[in-house]
This record gives sequence, C-alpha cells and structure tokens, in this order.
Amino acid sequence: MEKIQALRQQVDEVNEHILQSLNARAALIKQIRELKDKVSSDYFDPEREEEMLRNIIEKNEGPLSGKMIGDIFNHIFKVNLEFMGISHEKLPLVSDINKVKFCTIKEMFNLEKEGPYIIAGPCAIESLEYAEKIAQLLKGNNIKFIRGGAYKPRTSPYDFQGLGKEGVKILSHVGKKHNLITVSEVVDGSEVESVAKHIDMIQIGARNMQNFELLKRAGASGKPILLKRGMSATIKEFIFAAEYIALQGNKKIILCERGIRTFENKTRNTLDISSIPIIKKETQLPIIVDISHSLGRKDIIQPIAKAALAVGADGLMVEVHPKPELALSDSRQQLDPEEFQELLGALEA
Amino acid sequence: MEKIQALRQQVDEVNEHILQSLNARAALIKQIRELKDKVSSDYFDPEREEEMLRNIIEKNEGPLSGKMIGDIFNHIFKVNLEFMGISHEKLPLVSDINKVKFCTIKEMFNLEKEGPYIIAGPCAIESLEYAEKIAQLLKGNNIKFIRGGAYKPRTSPYDFQGLGKEGVKILSHVGKKHNLITVSEVVDGSEVESVAKHIDMIQIGARNMQNFELLKRAGASGKPILLKRGMSATIKEFIFAAEYIALQGNKKIILCERGIRTFENKTRNTLDISSIPIIKKETQLPIIVDISHSLGRKDIIQPIAKAALAVGADGLMVEVHPKPELALSDSRQQLDPEEFQELLGALEA
Amino acid sequence: MEKIQALRQQVDEVNEHILQSLNARAALIKQIRELKDKVSSDYFDPEREEEMLRNIIEKNEGPLSGKMIGDIFNHIFKVNLEFMGISHEKLPLVSDINKVKFCTIKEMFNLEKEGPYIIAGPCAIESLEYAEKIAQLLKGNNIKFIRGGAYKPRTSPYDFQGLGKEGVKILSHVGKKHNLITVSEVVDGSEVESVAKHIDMIQIGARNMQNFELLKRAGASGKPILLKRGMSATIKEFIFAAEYIALQGNKKIILCERGIRTFENKTRNTLDISSIPIIKKETQLPIIVDISHSLGRKDIIQPIAKAALAVGADGLMVEVHPKPELALSDSRQQLDPEEFQELLGALEA
Amino acid sequence: MEKIQALRQQVDEVNEHILQSLNARAALIKQIRELKDKVSSDYFDPEREEEMLRNIIEKNEGPLSGKMIGDIFNHIFKVNLEFMGISHEKLPLVSDINKVKFCTIKEMFNLEKEGPYIIAGPCAIESLEYAEKIAQLLKGNNIKFIRGGAYKPRTSPYDFQGLGKEGVKILSHVGKKHNLITVSEVVDGSEVESVAKHIDMIQIGARNMQNFELLKRAGASGKPILLKRGMSATIKEFIFAAEYIALQGNKKIILCERGIRTFENKTRNTLDISSIPIIKKETQLPIIVDISHSLGRKDIIQPIAKAALAVGADGLMVEVHPKPELALSDSRQQLDPEEFQELLGALEA
Repeated sequence: MEKIQALRQQVDEVNEHILQSLNARAALIKQIRELKDKVSSDYFDPEREEEMLRNIIEKNEGPLSGKMIGDIFNHIFKVNLEFMGISHEKLPLVSDINKVKFCTIKEMFNLEKEGPYIIAGPCAIESLEYAEKIAQLLKGNNIKFIRGGAYKPRTSPYDFQGLGKEGVKILSHVGKKHNLITVSEVVDGSEVESVAKHIDMIQIGARNMQNFELLKRAGASGKPILLKRGMSATIKEFIFAAEYIALQGNKKIILCERGIRTFENKTRNTLDISSIPIIKKETQLPIIVDISHSLGRKDIIQPIAKAALAVGADGLMVEVHPKPELALSDSRQQLDPEEFQELLGALEA
Repeated sequence: MEKIQALRQQVDEVNEHILQSLNARAALIKQIRELKDKVSSDYFDPEREEEMLRNIIEKNEGPLSGKMIGDIFNHIFKVNLEFMGISHEKLPLVSDINKVKFCTIKEMFNLEKEGPYIIAGPCAIESLEYAEKIAQLLKGNNIKFIRGGAYKPRTSPYDFQGLGKEGVKILSHVGKKHNLITVSEVVDGSEVESVAKHIDMIQIGARNMQNFELLKRAGASGKPILLKRGMSATIKEFIFAAEYIALQGNKKIILCERGIRTFENKTRNTLDISSIPIIKKETQLPIIVDISHSLGRKDIIQPIAKAALAVGADGLMVEVHPKPELALSDSRQQLDPEEFQELLGALEA
Repeated sequence: MEKIQALRQQVDEVNEHILQSLNARAALIKQIRELKDKVSSDYFDPEREEEMLRNIIEKNEGPLSGKMIGDIFNHIFKVNLEFMGISHEKLPLVSDINKVKFCTIKEMFNLEKEGPYIIAGPCAIESLEYAEKIAQLLKGNNIKFIRGGAYKPRTSPYDFQGLGKEGVKILSHVGKKHNLITVSEVVDGSEVESVAKHIDMIQIGARNMQNFELLKRAGASGKPILLKRGMSATIKEFIFAAEYIALQGNKKIILCERGIRTFENKTRNTLDISSIPIIKKETQLPIIVDISHSLGRKDIIQPIAKAALAVGADGLMVEVHPKPELALSDSRQQLDPEEFQELLGALEA
Repeated sequence: MEKIQALRQQVDEVNEHILQSLNARAALIKQIRELKDKVSSDYFDPEREEEMLRNIIEKNEGPLSGKMIGDIFNHIFKVNLEFMGISHEKLPLVSDINKVKFCTIKEMFNLEKEGPYIIAGPCAIESLEYAEKIAQLLKGNNIKFIRGGAYKPRTSPYDFQGLGKEGVKILSHVGKKHNLITVSEVVDGSEVESVAKHIDMIQIGARNMQNFELLKRAGASGKPILLKRGMSATIKEFIFAAEYIALQGNKKIILCERGIRTFENKTRNTLDISSIPIIKKETQLPIIVDISHSLGRKDIIQPIAKAALAVGADGLMVEVHPKPELALSDSRQQLDPEEFQELLGALEA
C-alpha cells in the first residue's frame, strides 16, 4: 500500500503538469485567435486541428493507443473551442440569423395577408379541365396557392408517372389565368430550369430529400423551394437538407412535415407534430404540414388541420380533386370540392 | 382450341352449380338466423364455423388442397355474415354504443365543468412536503386532478422505484386535504385492491398495456382506469387492451396517448397526434394526451398542449415538480411551478 | 333447436356440393391450362375471368347480391390461380424468369470462381497512396472487387464530399493496375456517363434508391448496377426500384441490403437479414450484404458476416481503410488491414 | 501570419508535453492497478477520482475554468479506465463475470451434448392428443425441449386464451412421459408457483418483458427462465429486464431474440440478428432465436435458422403443430411435422 501511495503521488504530479500545460495551451490559443481576428480569418480551423492530431498521433509511443490519445485531444480541442465561445458544430445558415436572414412566406410572394396559408390542388395534374375546376374552386375560396404534380415519383414504374412537361404547362396556364401561385415537384436536376421558368415554387419530394445534387440545382434556380421531409429522415437530416439549398444563396425555403414511417398502420405515415415547434426553435425557416400525405385518409383531416395550425405551422398542404374516386394516384386521400369547403369552414370556425 | 372451348363450357356449368349452391346456402343460413333470433342466441358462431370447416376439409379429396378449400370457405362464411349484416370481427364493447354506454370524464367524477381536464403532478411521489406543495399549486389554479407515481416501473432495477405504499398514503392524504382527484399507477395485480382503497383513478402504464392479468384485476376493481398506450402498440392493440378492462363490467376507462417509439431522437417518443381523432371515431372512450412523456423535453410543451386540445383530446397529463432539477426521475421533462403556470396561461389565451 | 339442427344438416350438404364443384372446377381448369401450354398462350386470362364473372352475376337470382357473388367468385379465381402456380398481379421483370433472365455476379464479370464474393475498400477515396495500399491488400488476399466513394452523399454539406472526378481517376487507376473490378457511387444523372467510362460497376446509394431519374440513367448505361436498399424502404419498394433499372434493358443488377432504420441504437442500422431469402424467393437478382453500414461498428463484424453468408447472400461489402482513425468519413466502422485479414480468416474457417 | 506560425509552434510543443504526460500517467496507473490486483481491492475507485479532481481544480489558475479543466480530466480518467479494460458505469450482474457466474444451457439442465439446442412445440397446447404427437416427433428426432403455451397473452380478449391449468397439466404429462424438458409461458405473478411445480422452464413473453413484478416472482422461483425481448425493447432494456431476474439470485436465465417491430411488413417482426453477438459481448447469458415469431411465415425458416446459428445463437425456438391449418393461434407460422424434419435435415447438412 505504501508503494501505491508513492505512485499516486506521482500521478498527482503528472496531473499538475497536465493542468499547467492545458492552461498554457489555452492562453496560446487565445493569442492566436486575437491575431486571427485582426486578419479576419475564420476562427475554427478543422484542418489545423487535423494536422495537430496527425502530428500528435505520429509521435505517440504508448502505452496509450493512438486512438485513445486522439480521443483525449479531440476533447481538449472541444473544450478550447468552448473556452473561446466557438461552437464546435458550425451553426447552419438556416439557423443563424446573424449570418443570413431567410424569408417568411409573406415576403417570398409579396402577400398582403398574414398566414397561415393553404396550398391545395390535386395529387397529379391529369387534364386541363380538372386543373381549371380546381383553380376556380381555390379562387372562389380566396386560396392563394395551387399545387399539382407533373413529374410523379412512384414506387412502381407501372404506375401513372405524371404528364411531365404537359402537366407543367397546364398548371402554369391555370395559375396565370386565375392569379394563383403555382407549386410543382421536380424530380431531376436536368428539369429544374425548364420548370422554374413556368412554376412559382419548386417542390422537392420526400424521396428526394437527400438527393443533394437536386437540392443544389433547385437552390441555384433562385426560386422559392418547398422541401418535404424524407419518410424516415430525422429532424437534423431535414435541416441539413435545407442547408444544401441555402448554400446556393437561396433565402426562400419552406419546409414541409409530411409524416414519418412507423409501425402504425391506421395512417399512411405518422405525422410528427412535435417537429414543427422544434424546427421553429432551431431554424428561421417557415414550415407547413402536408395533412393529406401524413394521413393517407381523409376522415380525420379536420382535427389534424386544426392541430397543425395550433402547434404553429405556417400553413397546410392539402390534396383536392374534382373526382377523387377517378384520380390516377392517391385517390383515397384526396378531398372532393365539397369536403374541401367543409375543411375551410371548420378552420374558420 | 375446340377442346378448350368445350372444357370452358363445362367450367361455366360448374360455375352455375356453385352459384346456385351459394344462394341455397345463404337462404338456409337466413332461416337459421331467424330461428335463433327467437331463442335469442348469439348470431355469429365461430365454433360452428370451425366445425363446418373441419368437416369440409376432412371430406376434401383434391385436387385443391385443404388449405385452398379452407381459404375459399372462409371467404364464403365471411360474405354470408356480411349478407346477414353481421360484422365478422365482433365490435368490441368499447366501440359498440348499442351494447354498453361508457362514461365521459365528467360523468366518472361528477364534475361540474366540461373539459378539457388537466391531470398534473410529479413523476413520482418523493415526500409529503413536495406533494403538499404541488397540491397547493393545483388547488390555486383550479385543477381537479393530481397524479404521482408510488410504484415506478423503471428500466433499470438500480433506479428509484418509488415509495410504494408510503407514496400511496402521501398522495391520498394531500388529495383528501385539498379535495383533489388522485391518480396513481399500479404495476402488479396484487396491489390493485390496496391502491384502489385510497386512490381515485388507477393508472396502467405503457409497459403494462398488454399485461392482461393486471388489466382484468384493475377493471374488476370498479375504479376509473387510466390506460396508457404501449410504446410500440398499434391503435388496434390499444383498443383491445381497453376491451380487457371493459369486459370486467368497468365503464370508466380513459385512454392516454403518450407517444410511440420511432427513430426520431429529438423527442423521447413521437406523439401520434392522429391517434386521438381515430380513437374518437372508433370508440366511445375519452382520451387524453400525456404531453410530458410524449416529448421528454419541456421547451415545446406549450404548442404541443395546444395541438392536443385542438385535435380534440379530452384532457392533458403533465408533470410538474417543485424542484425538477432535484427530481429522482425524469427530471428533464418535469415543469417547475412557474413553467406550469405559464402553460396554463398559454392554454387560456 | 331441432329445426336448427335440420337446417344445419342441409347446410352441410350444400357445403359438400360446393366442395365437389370447386374440385371439379379445379380439375377442369388444370386440363385447360395443360392444353394452353401446348399452344403457348398466356396462362392467366383476365378477360376470360371477367366474362365468367359477368355470366355468373347475370344469372344470379339472390338472395346473395351480385357484389357478394362476385366477391366469392373472385376469391375462387384467385385460389385457382394459386393452385396452378400463377400469380395474379403482374410480375415485375426482375421476378419473372420467363420474360428476362438476369445475370448472376459470375456472369456479369466473367468470373471463374463461384461466390460468395467480397467487395471491399475504403468508405471514400482519399488519396492515391491509400487506394494503392488497399488495392495491394485486396490483391494479396485474392479479392476481386474494390470499392471506394468519389462522390459522397453526406447529411451535412460541411462534411467531406469526396474527391469527385479525381477520386474516380484514382480508383480506376489502381483497379486497372491490379486487375480489380471497381465499384463507385454515382449521385446524379449527369455524372453517370463519365463515371461509367472509368468504373466497372455503378453503385446507387441508399439515399438515392428512389431517385428514379438516376436509376433510369444508370440503368441505360448498360453497366452493372449495385443498388442499395433505402434506409426505410420496404422490400417491395426495393424490388420496384430495381425494376426501374431493369426496364432500361439492363440485366446486370445486384441488390445490397444495408440495414434499415429502427429505434435500436447499439447498431447504426438494423440489418434486416430476412430480406435476403425473401428477395431470393421473389426475384432472380443476386443480393449482397453491406456489413459495415448495417452495423456502424466493427467489433461484431465476424459473426454478422457469417450469418449473411449462411442466410444465402451472394456476397459481402465491407469497408477497409489503411488507417481508419484518420479516415475522413465513417472512421468507426472501417476495418484496418489486420482486422480485414482476420475477417477473411474467420470466413474461411 | 508569422506570429501565428510562431504561436502554433508553441502549441505543438505544449501538445507534445501533454502527450508525454498522458502516457506517463497511464504507465503509472497501470503499475498501481497491478499492485492492487495482488491485494485484491476494487480496480475502479470513484472516490480516488473525485479526490484527484478536487485537487486539480483547486490548483487551477486559469485561463480555463474549473469546469472546463474538470471536463478534460474526467475524459482522461475515462480513457484510462478503458485502457485498463474497466468499464466506468456499474456493470449489471448479468454482465459481470467477476460477481456472479451464470449458467450455460448445458449446465442448467445437466445436458450431455453441447448446443445449439432446439426448443420446439405448438404455439398453444390444444389437446393431449396433439401434445402427445409432438412429443413423439421431438423424441424421435432427439430434441430435448418441448414448448407449448397454456396461458396465451392475446391482443384480443376474444381470441383463444389457452387452456390454462389444463394446458400445464398436459404439457407436464407428455414431458415426463417422454423425458423432455418442458417450457411454458407465465403471464401473471400469481401463477408462477403453480406452474413452476410442473414445468421445467418458465417463459416470460415479449409483452411482459417489462412486467417487473412478474420478472421478480419468476426469478424468485429458482426455475430456469426464458426471457423474450419486448417488441420494441432496446438491447439495453432487454439486459436490464434480465437483471431484475438475476437480482433474485437466479443464475439460470436464457434470453430470446424474437424480432422487433419495424415498418417492414413482409415479416411479422424484423429479426434483429445483430443483437445476438452484442448480447454475447455485453452479458454472460445464453441467447436463442425464436425463428417462428421473428418471421410470422415459414417459407424462409431454413435460411434464417442457419443464419441464427452462424451468428452464434445458443439455440432456436420453433413452432411445430400436427395440423397447422387447424391451429387455434398463429397457424401461418407453425411448421407441420414434415416441414420440421426438413428443417432439422437442413441444419445438419
């Protein structure tokens, strides 16, 4: 036990050396930062960290392994960043109001009224006649946004894939005629430009939330982007997907919660209602709720719409079709015009 | 091809025989049902079906396999039930307002005011002093229900397991003193009676949602039961769990949505907000939302509480503790008294 | 009750008639099919079914309604198709060996040895030096396939995104030098052609499994395609994603199970081992298991590799890096050369 | 920039000092541990750590705060424990071979042969005749364990609930007659004793994995316990559930992986094959795989059984029934005797 005592004293001494070195190190780092401030370079320098780490690990002769030494130094680096008031994880643009100010929906489209806003229309554009009917319905109810899929990403290649360019033309036509803001999905980078010419807001669907090349191309178009959450995307992944768009200089991004995949099968997806206030806290971006895809059924759409607005969503997306039973896709979840008006009535009440 | 034509004609003839037999069969079944009506036996008779099935399969000489024949006859039985207006799946009592009428929360406790109701209190009863403080807080805010765990089911046996009988005594004492309705969890059938003597509503926790023996014992106590949804229970399983209680003659059942387990980790569970209107449609039972366990964090509790009420929940359960940072369990999600009052204010606004 | 007994006996008799008719019908259908086989017409004939149905319903005089009768006969038709081994739904090409015969891995690359095959290499190509080291390691162990990411889809835009074209060049160089088959991911349709020029097999990553335009472009290149299962894709969606490639005339498709997203957090994903025999049953396509991404940890890689081969996978994908602790991505799951050789040893034992 | 360069060089030097101190420290700690080993005191000494930490923080003069220094040293301590192979968190009994040694399956039942072992039998005991047939089948194939449910926890109260005591009697009878080890589920604490009298191993089902009172009662019986993983239980929760049994002094615990609940619907549950090697690493307990409940289908049972054994499971549980199509529960997943023998043949091949 005496021997242990002696060894422990040695440990205490080494501890003290480490303590002094850590503080000396922090003082040096502070000086470096102050110099850097003057020459306005970035504070946090991951490459320098990696270089240091490589140097240290190369010089390591044990008995601690390189991994263990790396582990400790990474922690030391982290505490030093904290010491200098730098968050290790760089705040994304979409969250950092000091760097970039993102647009509200009202600002994006120069709207007069405050939200919440409703974006409505058929799952897919199927014909001019149907699109015209929906446009009239929306206009008559003072709705500002019309949606409709022209390029439909479908699980099976044997399902209806949308009218493509023809669909874009129809939607654009009825949009202009009735002075509605048009929203339609793009599924491939090569179509972004041609769609951006005719449509007011580009939608990125759930399946493409991490199709980063598409995000970049859509972001670069300068158009407002409606980004849907992936079926099993975490909120963190969702925010970073928006960041890919933001990094193109695009300040017009609307997020859309549309339910996540779970074991529950009474609804098509499980609407993650908590994601709305969390995203409101963690980002500056507006967020809406797609109540049709979240549910995959329409009998409970009224209470869910109310909940989405109560929780603070900036708007709702909802599918409406002149004759849902004849729709070429998602016929079970699309409202008919009468049900749509009942929904509007319920929201006003 | 001629030969095929001939064989097809034979198939048509057999089809016709089957058609006639099916209709003859339906006519017989109808007669049987009418006779049964007079002697008031149950219409749907699964044992008789099984007996028929066994008979048929035994007599089967192929070429169709017993399984295939069974498959077809099961379908025939199903259509016949439909023909007689009997749903094959027996409607559970909790869904069938014609059989049993279940109580509203107001009726259960002879309350004056309509809901929504708030059930609040600490995760666990830790001391008389704390319980008293919370009781005063609730009383002062005109809240009718106080909750507090005495028997705590915990993942690790090394975590605080609750005060047991002592906790029940404390809760009962402050409840009576301040005229509050008390709610506490029971985790084993053997404790039901002793808890029922002192506590006004028995809670069955998420981990025990399919502990059917506990459900039966709790149901048989005649006390109002608060049944929480299991962590990964489907809505269907949730409803059938309530049915185990109802079958004991208990008409005082409150369901509680408390979030389901998903991959998202910014919240402890994912609140399945859609379950509330679905359960409202499919059953007669009142349902509340446990906003504390759904989230596992308190910074977004206000918007979630609003959403829960907007969607039609009959009430909210929320955890409040005099000093959450010192709480022996779930310290991160419990509100302090000030936060609790802010929540109440936000709900009234 | 006596009367009921008598009626029930009559039902039993009718049941027996139906039983006999069903079997007689099946025998006739079988004869028809055998005749058809000789004249090579299609087995399943939806028009004939509809015609029969119309006939039957026209002749129906109740008491069962036409819809009910139709319901039962549709079920009878379905069971008969099953009896003859014909699937009712249209088989995708990847499942229908009678339409298109897809390649085995051996056929795709003119390999001498039967599998299982191992595809190994670093998560990302980081430098020529590292790639060369890995190529030598593989060559020395008689591995035929080298993988390495040049275009890396990353959750955060601030993470290492791969060397791009430079990475393709490096991989192609070491592949040719050491006579290894090269595998690398493509993340955008516009890169397919340039990558296809240099790389032997194009990988579609999990995030892009439903990037249908990319699937089509990759399929049209004629190159072998390695398609990874999406993080939360069902097996059905996975098979249909492969069908998008197959419809481009591409017969060289390898599927890759890489784990699905669940609540369990001791592994990065949950390897869905059952998907391998299911896909073997439902399609003709070879399937391999990515044991690195499934797990996100390497301490249990040996038993999992053994399980993957025992269940019938055609190969394994595994990440190996000269110095995993310095890797720019996924450092925790990449094996070092020594661990890699231990794995190979364990698989041979 | 020159000045920065100079300061950076100083940082590099300090880094090197820290590196040397860390290694010197580790070497000292190792010596202390070796001395302690001889005097058999505990390795991990939280009090000594706290004392060191207090000393260090007292001596700290900044610029790093005491909290920051504490943070770094806590991390250094943690890495040092890792270096010496000591886990920081208290090990549960089931994981700590130094505290309690748990039984292998062979030891539990004094078996002659090493595993893997097969536990087979019907989902539920339905009659003596059926049980007798299965017992003969098992005996004839040299299987040692027979399972069969007497108390069946069922989602719906209207489904077959098992024969109860009668079922226990039947199983016990055929077990004794054919010298088979009997396994049956208990669903309520009050039945533990009476079942323990007649049955050799008590099963706790998935729904009751966190029915802690039942775990305690079952553990206290002294009987071997077969504990199934909950439908959505994490591995950590599974291990702690076993700990509740172990804390009763019971050393005879077998874990059973039976699949977890996910979105994939081609199987009833998703077999989490990775859980087997993880549990082998983290605990001493034997673990088997219930291949029937994991799958809910029997056509892929052979490859899954092989995978389960390849990954290192100590045994398999599989359902077999004389006439699965007539079974009162889970008829789709139960093997018939012929299929069962094919499975055994495939496992031997």
